[in-house]
Amino acid sequence: MRSSFLPCKAGPVTRRSITSTRNPQLKAVRRLRRSRVREREGVFLAEGRRQLESALAAGARVTCVYAAPALYLVDGDEALVCEAALRGARIVELGAEAFMSITSQVRPDGIAAVVERPGTGLESIPARSLVLVATGIERPGNLGTIVRTAEAAGAGGLVACDAATDVFHPETVRGSVGTVFDLPLAQASLSETLAWLAAGHARVLVATPDGERPVWEADYSAPGLAVVVGGERHGVDPEWVAAADETVRIPMAGRADSLNVGVAAGIVLFEAARQRATTRRM
Amino acid sequence: MRSSFLPCKAGPVTRRSITSTRNPQLKAVRRLRRSRVREREGVFLAEGRRQLESALAAGARVTCVYAAPALYLVDGDEALVCEAALRGARIVELGAEAFMSITSQVRPDGIAAVVERPGTGLESIPARSLVLVATGIERPGNLGTIVRTAEAAGAGGLVACDAATDVFHPETVRGSVGTVFDLPLAQASLSETLAWLAAGHARVLVATPDGERPVWEADYSAPGLAVVVGGERHGVDPEWVAAADETVRIPMAGRADSLNVGVAAGIVLFEAARQRATTRRM
Repeated sequence: MRSSFLPCKAGPVTRRSITSTRNPQLKAVRRLRRSRVREREGVFLAEGRRQLESALAAGARVTCVYAAPALYLVDGDEALVCEAALRGARIVELGAEAFMSITSQVRPDGIAAVVERPGTGLESIPARSLVLVATGIERPGNLGTIVRTAEAAGAGGLVACDAATDVFHPETVRGSVGTVFDLPLAQASLSETLAWLAAGHARVLVATPDGERPVWEADYSAPGLAVVVGGERHGVDPEWVAAADETVRIPMAGRADSLNVGVAAGIVLFEAARQRATTRRM
Repeated sequence: MRSSFLPCKAGPVTRRSITSTRNPQLKAVRRLRRSRVREREGVFLAEGRRQLESALAAGARVTCVYAAPALYLVDGDEALVCEAALRGARIVELGAEAFMSITSQVRPDGIAAVVERPGTGLESIPARSLVLVATGIERPGNLGTIVRTAEAAGAGGLVACDAATDVFHPETVRGSVGTVFDLPLAQASLSETLAWLAAGHARVLVATPDGERPVWEADYSAPGLAVVVGGERHGVDPEWVAAADETVRIPMAGRADSLNVGVAAGIVLFEAARQRATTRRM
């Protein structure tokens, strides 16, 4: 390990440079792939330029940036790393091989940030808003797409309910294209989520293949509205159907009996957005 | 290599059993990962039980099934393989290690079928129908999700236009959850697709972030309607915007400036389905 100075518009920044993949600090970063370690350490890894940009734009606390100039893809990368340094992040420079040992990306861009993990209690979600409840999601990439979609649809927050993955998994962060930094996120069990929705008097609308009516005939106007979608394999739990104020289905014309869960969430959320926009205009 | 008999309700089926990963036949199967080889050989690989079921249900020509009983996940797998044999497929039994060498799945279920590749000319698509034109798609998994979504929305076919991947890539087949066997698929260039749409007098509706009007204010009633969505990085080509009868945008409320292309396709296609269903009822 050696110290080095690198040019930076914000003035010279002292950086330590690591080239060995066996460096203990890199081992610690690799351990962040495990959900339990992320929780214990209170941080998670955001990989790639776009994620770091989003983190800084959203005011997230970036504690450390691992940067491999040999892997940078665009000119602005150095400036972005300096921006993170200005906001208080420690910068650690890595050789290409050392960087590859901490990333799960096949073609990484040489930037990986350690970011403080915000709280994921239900109290982080604004009560009277459109909330997506994603239940039993198994694949982190799918969860990331769902976060991205919910943010784009104007949801006030997302509850990952009984998820087999966690909202700060590296693939979730990447699939969200940085929106994990913008959308309030909660993780909770079924009973906790049901109790929280009941206490907030939210209308509960459950999407399931055998829902009572087509998705476009439901009522999405309630200020506090929870849209519930089920996981990849088992769909929504019967308790959700029992607790629903309304159940909806996405009418399917072909032989397919289900949709990708991210696509299904998008269809329901943007139908909600369509109706809420139309109502507001009237 | 040895010959073996295995019990089968349809009577005993002679199978050859391969245990060496270096077997030339398995090398040939591995070469099917390459698009050019799939085209030259006129076949593609459909991995997993669900894909084989869909292939048989849709009447696709399954020429050979590679089966690794050691990896079977459910009881019905043996019966399904026998069903394929009854329909004329050659069955080749593989050891677990040999099977792992031909699959791209992490947790395979021991079934991989070689299926005849149908024609992908534009003439395969019914002219006066709802057609999805997916342009410049790069990731095979995304293309698979789009095929699944288009089939579920009742589209008559899908054109993969200037795609960086092909519709019979193993990940596309898997992402489609078997719907590649149900939905007519074409592969064509931009100019071929534009000429074909013009000749068929199809209405062209292009989805792009700076489209003229919200997706739900467009007119989807034309019997021959092409919905055009753009690829992951560059969106739709300006020539599509120039050729459009109408351009639409998905109004986004958050900080995200785009959606996953599969989610975007789902929102536009199911808005088309909603309007077409409503119109038909009136």
